[in-house]
Order: sequence, then structure tokens, then C-alpha cells
Amino acid sequence: MNSISIGTDGVMDFLTEDEINSFSEKVGDIHHSMTNRTGRGAEFLGWMNLPSSISENFIRDLKETALHIRENSDTVVVVGIGGSYLGARAVIEALTPSFSSGNEGNPSILYAGNNISEDYLSELITLLDSKNYSIIVISKSGTTTEPAIAFRILREHIENKYGKEEAKNRIFSITDKEKGALKKLSDEEGYRTFVIPDDVGGRFSVLTPVGLLPIACAGIDIEDLIKGAAEMEKSLNDDQEISDNISNLYAVIRNLLNEKGKAIEIMAAYTPKLQYFIEWWKQLYGESEGKNGKGIFPVGVIYTTDLHSMGQMVQDGVRNIFETILNVESEKGVVKIPEVVDDLDGLNYIAGKRLSEVNEKAMQGTMMAHLDGGVPNVVINIPELSAYYVGQLIYFFERACAVSAYLLGVNPFDQPGVEAYKKNMFKLLGKQV
Amino acid sequence: MNSISIGTDGVMDFLTEDEINSFSEKVGDIHHSMTNRTGRGAEFLGWMNLPSSISENFIRDLKETALHIRENSDTVVVVGIGGSYLGARAVIEALTPSFSSGNEGNPSILYAGNNISEDYLSELITLLDSKNYSIIVISKSGTTTEPAIAFRILREHIENKYGKEEAKNRIFSITDKEKGALKKLSDEEGYRTFVIPDDVGGRFSVLTPVGLLPIACAGIDIEDLIKGAAEMEKSLNDDQEISDNISNLYAVIRNLLNEKGKAIEIMAAYTPKLQYFIEWWKQLYGESEGKNGKGIFPVGVIYTTDLHSMGQMVQDGVRNIFETILNVESEKGVVKIPEVVDDLDGLNYIAGKRLSEVNEKAMQGTMMAHLDGGVPNVVINIPELSAYYVGQLIYFFERACAVSAYLLGVNPFDQPGVEAYKKNMFKLLGKQV
Repeated sequence: MNSISIGTDGVMDFLTEDEINSFSEKVGDIHHSMTNRTGRGAEFLGWMNLPSSISENFIRDLKETALHIRENSDTVVVVGIGGSYLGARAVIEALTPSFSSGNEGNPSILYAGNNISEDYLSELITLLDSKNYSIIVISKSGTTTEPAIAFRILREHIENKYGKEEAKNRIFSITDKEKGALKKLSDEEGYRTFVIPDDVGGRFSVLTPVGLLPIACAGIDIEDLIKGAAEMEKSLNDDQEISDNISNLYAVIRNLLNEKGKAIEIMAAYTPKLQYFIEWWKQLYGESEGKNGKGIFPVGVIYTTDLHSMGQMVQDGVRNIFETILNVESEKGVVKIPEVVDDLDGLNYIAGKRLSEVNEKAMQGTMMAHLDGGVPNVVINIPELSAYYVGQLIYFFERACAVSAYLLGVNPFDQPGVEAYKKNMFKLLGKQV
Repeated sequence: MNSISIGTDGVMDFLTEDEINSFSEKVGDIHHSMTNRTGRGAEFLGWMNLPSSISENFIRDLKETALHIRENSDTVVVVGIGGSYLGARAVIEALTPSFSSGNEGNPSILYAGNNISEDYLSELITLLDSKNYSIIVISKSGTTTEPAIAFRILREHIENKYGKEEAKNRIFSITDKEKGALKKLSDEEGYRTFVIPDDVGGRFSVLTPVGLLPIACAGIDIEDLIKGAAEMEKSLNDDQEISDNISNLYAVIRNLLNEKGKAIEIMAAYTPKLQYFIEWWKQLYGESEGKNGKGIFPVGVIYTTDLHSMGQMVQDGVRNIFETILNVESEKGVVKIPEVVDDLDGLNYIAGKRLSEVNEKAMQGTMMAHLDGGVPNVVINIPELSAYYVGQLIYFFERACAVSAYLLGVNPFDQPGVEAYKKNMFKLLGKQV
């Protein structure tokens, strides 16, 4: 099979191969500590060999559950926040049509419990009154405020709509294997339950049931997704030169650029389908690296759209940025530019071309322009948007993230800062502690 | 009527009132030059007195056209990029339900011509095969690549679907008053046409037909929107102290914070409805300020969602950021947290509360936490999400943007950097020049 690849021409004016290779020992040490589970946060390295360790039985079980949900629901509400919904949404939006009506035969996947907006939940409930739906609730503890509130309300709604017994057939939980509020409730009510492994943190959990069950419900082939990730896992190993290991190469380059004053990394895609993949990437990197006063600030853009909003700033603003480009090399839909007799808009010179050809030239032209403007770029080449390549991409970014955070000198796997707002909120809400 | 207001408590640990007031003369000079049309880019100050100068006849004309479109279409495709769609989308998403099915009696507003993704346009066309639709095409020149390509393809589709004569009844153009490819085509074909004024640049054009026609099609009261903007226009004047003029105050504070090393401004809202309003703001500020190696990098987040992705970085990462919070003070939908007997999730202490109360405490708790973490904040208080207050907000941000860019020492109204990628793209596509 082909593989995603990395293009580094766009950074070579800003750093040297020697600088990259000077990281060899550091990267080797990091790999050693990851393989031997001796680094900081090593208890959360379960994602490392996850793709290659998923069994056929496990996949079959997930697929059967998904089939059951698909057969009795036109809508699936995924209740979760952060890593408990972003991975699923990233994969689903990358691999399904942009407009839900184009996705016939598959349920709509909607999301709740990732905000506390009263209007949002109120409008969702109005919608669900007329839908035939199931709920997948995802929470390790079952007490995270946002999903817990949404699930209280949606559970009441689904029980009122279908009766308590049928509701049990429509609620699926993904939670801790033995403890916590959601596990206890699921056991009491008899919900079908899947386990979030202890050694996989939220933002690395897309290839656990957290991501896989919603993704399977959307009609995506989770076997291909896992296969892609497993191929990538196999292809990255400790003995490689940095230049042969695309995760290490990406990790080293972004750290070098950061050392040279590039404080912001802009992840750019040329298709709106990757918007939520970029949101997933932002969480993965922002939450893994943003600590102890450190971190590269992750930003997402969809081009060419955002060339007409952020483009000016990227071309000509403060030179504290670099770009990483998700280059999808082929598109499925075929649309050609028609010839028009009067040619008022002057586009006849590209008549007959597919849009993807024009999009590719826009990408190349933009990289050159931004490079001229002092913005280095790394390109991640993706042969096509398929489950297999998205699986590769997921594992590539996870592995690179861990290495990158270790290079930066922080624990990739904790998120102590996320507690601060919660503590204040509980206090303001009058919670007894 | 009430008004939006600004809260500055969250910056007072980082700067002093004296520092703010030291800008009085500068701000006075900027206002003078804006009023007298003598500053850089003064030929694009048409937005300044726009709200108060829109006539009743003009509004009636727009509303009648919108009514015609609404009566014969279940879907409206807005073809435009950058300022030619972001303003409309910002207002429409802020003021309509989160799920289109909740917006009965109003057409769905879809967007095209803001990207070159072949999959996107292919999927849109599949959708339009089964919809009853009209097109609003927005382009000053008619030759901007992205909307010109989309319009060629959609024009062919709508003519094939309805026949050439009926298509003319379903295509509406917003373009230059006398010149350009789209104006010429519109005259030849007899499309109903509205004018983009010469003295209003794309990112300031939401209160021209560019924004108003799509917004009216979505069922939003454009009179209220304009009224809000006109009230804000009236309330901001040259003789005020900085502390009495909320646009000047915001402009001065963000420049002061930038001078103190805050390179990134994070615009945060606690409702997903404001996601595209923040995209509009990003274009307005990014494109106005990001030039000559200067500018504050604008970033958007939706909380509490993104507290579980970017929250760690904001709390504890590099201290080069400040936050501006869009605080919507009341929500329409009423959803209360139900009491549950077993209270496994421990939420009974807030049972009976509305979600908006919890959301408000989350906001307050987050501001305190981020402030503790070294992140200053400015709060924009918005009594509710209504056309009137969104109108106020639009004018407030436009006026502050101009002042802010002048303070930074750049021309707020040009965007020379946007041309660079286009030139390269044309060359790569083999365009003869």
C-alpha cells in the first residue's frame, strides 16, 4: 500500500539538515523511554501499540453494535467533550459528504455535551422530537459537567419518547471498565457498554471505542481505519534516521522552528472536510504541549477560503508563524469547469480542467507566496481521503506529538491546566467539596 | 434601548488607566482624520456613516427581493468568498437555530465559491438536484477565481434545471454599479442586481446588500440589524473620553496589550452560534492589521467546548495571549437540569437551574482561572442574540478595527498580501497576462 509522506522543501531556507540531525540522540532517547515505558506520563502510552493489538473479535463486536444502532436510528447523538468527541467528529466529517442529505442510508451523527449553551440543547431537543434516535454517551468518570448535564437531559427525553425499556436499547455508554458514575449507571440500567482503556488519555483515544463506535455508526469502515494506523505504527521504528521516520522528522522540524521564533503553527487544508480533523489536531498538540509556559500555539485554517480572511496576515503580518499543509492528492467528486462563449469572467483558459487541478495550483502558488513572505511550510501528502489514510494520519500525528512534547521538555500526557476553570465554576455554582 | 458594553476589569493587572489615557491625543487625531477623510485608505470609509444613511426605500427593495426568493426557494446558495460571504454567514448563524430543521418557513442558506474543493461542489450539486433553489452571486469584479468558478458551474446547473428564462428569475447578483464581468453579465441576462458601493471594502460590507440580501432571505429582520448599527454609530463620537467610547477603549487596550508582548488575541464565545461571527471578526482584524510585519494574530474559540482542547494551552502555555469574550447575557431556549433520584453523576446540587446559569458560571470561573494564569481579558457584554444587538456589535467592531489599525500604524483598508497567492496560481495555471 501507499503511505502518507512528508515534504520538507519549504523549511530548508530556515534550518539545515545538520540542525535536524543534531536531534538524533535526543530522539533516540525519547524512543527508548517510550518503548520501555520509563518517560514522564508513561502510564498513558497505551495508544502506542493500540492499532496492531486490536483483535478481529473486538472489531466484530463494535460493528455489530453499530449495525444495531444503524438499523433502528436515523440519528445518533454522541454525548462527549474534548477527546471524547473530537476524534470521532474528525474522522466522520473527513469521510462523509459535506451535506447530510448526500449520505443516504447512514444516520446523521449529532453532538451534544460539548458545550453548555441552553439554546443549542433546546434546539437539539426540538429536532430530536421528530427523529428516531440513539445516544452514545462517552465519559471516563461520568461526572464531567458538560456531558453529564447533556446526558441527564437527553436520557429524560429518550425515556419519555420511547419508554424506559426501549430507551435501554438505545443508550450506549463508553466509560471506565469498573468505576465511575457512568459505569455504575450503565450496569444498573443494563446499557451496552464499551471500555475506555486506563492507559489511553482522551486526546489519544480515537482508535478505542470512544472514536470507533460513532465512526462505525456513520458507515465508515473501521477495519480500514485501524489497518492504516497499524501500517503507520509498523513503519515507524527506533532504528531509523530522523529523515526516514516521518513522525520524528515532523516533531524535530516544528521544535526547531519554534526555537527560531515561530510561536504559531497554522495547520492548513484545502478541503472543508478536514476542518474537524484540524480541530482534533489542535487538541492533540495544544493540550499535550501547552504547559509550563511552553508550547507552539496551534491554529487551523481552510484554504482557499481563509486566504480571503487570514491570508493577508499570513503573507505579510508578524513573522512568528509556520504552516503545515494537509495536501489531499486526489478528490472523488468530478466537476469540470465549463466553457462559456462570451468568457466575461476570463476563465476559459482553464475550461475543461477539474476543480482539483485548480485547487492544487492554488496550494502550490500559496506555499510559494507564503515562503516568499517568510513563512516556512511542511507538507503532509495524503493520497486520498479514505479510512485507510486517515488511520495513517492519526497515528502519525499521535506519535509525532509525543516525541514533540518530550523534545519541548513537557509531559505529553497530562493536562493539569484544564482543572482550573472547573474548580472556579464548581465554587461559583455552590458545590460542596 | 440597552446597548452592548465593555468590561475591562480583566486587563487592569496588565496596564494602567494612565497608559490608556495617554492615547487620547492619538485617538483624537485618528478620529479627526477619519471624519475628514484624510487618513490612509480614506476612500474606503463609506462604512462609517452607512448605518444612519440607509433609506427606508432601500430596505423595502431588499425585503421585497428577499420575499420573492423566499417564496420560490427552499434553498439559497450564496456564492462569494471572504467579505462577500462571512458577514452574511456570521449574522445568519448567530440568529437562526443550530439545526436547519428548526428553522421552518425559512430557506436553508448554503455557501459556495469560497473554496475550490471538487468534492464540496460535487456534493453541493447532488444536493441541489433535489432542491428548489435560487443563487445570490456576490463579487465586485466578477473575476475572483473561487466564486467565478462556482458560479460558472452553478449557473449551468440552474439553467439546465429550470430552463434559461426561469433561471434569470432565480439568479441575483451583487456587484459593482457599472463595471466588471458580473455587472456586464447581469445586464445582458437581466438578473436583478444590487450594488456594492465603491467606498466600502469587502470586510466592511455586511451592512450593504452583500450581507443584507442573504440575511433577509434567512428570515432575519434587517431593519433591526441596521437600527442597532445606527445606534452604535450615533453613540460613538469624537469628543468622548476614551473610557466613554467603547470602540476606542477596545482599540487602545488591544494595542497596549500587544505592545506588552501579547501577540495573539483569542476571541471566545460560550455559544456555538457565534462561531461564524468570530470568523467574520478574524477576517476584519487579520486582514486590516496583518501587514508590514505587524498585527495581532486573531484566533477564535468556542467555550466550554474548546476548554477541553485549547484550554490547557490558554491556562498554562506561552504567555503571549489575551482573550476577548463575547458574553451573551441571556438565551432564548429554556432547558433546566432535571433532578435524578440516585444522583450518581453528582449534579443534583444544580438541579432546577437553567443551563444558561451554569454557562455563566463557567464563563466567570474561566475568566478568573485564565487571569490567574496570566491571561488578561476584555469582555463584550451582549444583552441577547438579536438582530439589533448584532447590528451594534458589527459597527462596534468595524469602528474599533479602523482605529486599532491606525494606532498600529498600518492602512486598515488595503490587503496587498492577498494578491501574492493569486499571481502564483495564475502563472501555474498558464494564464496569459
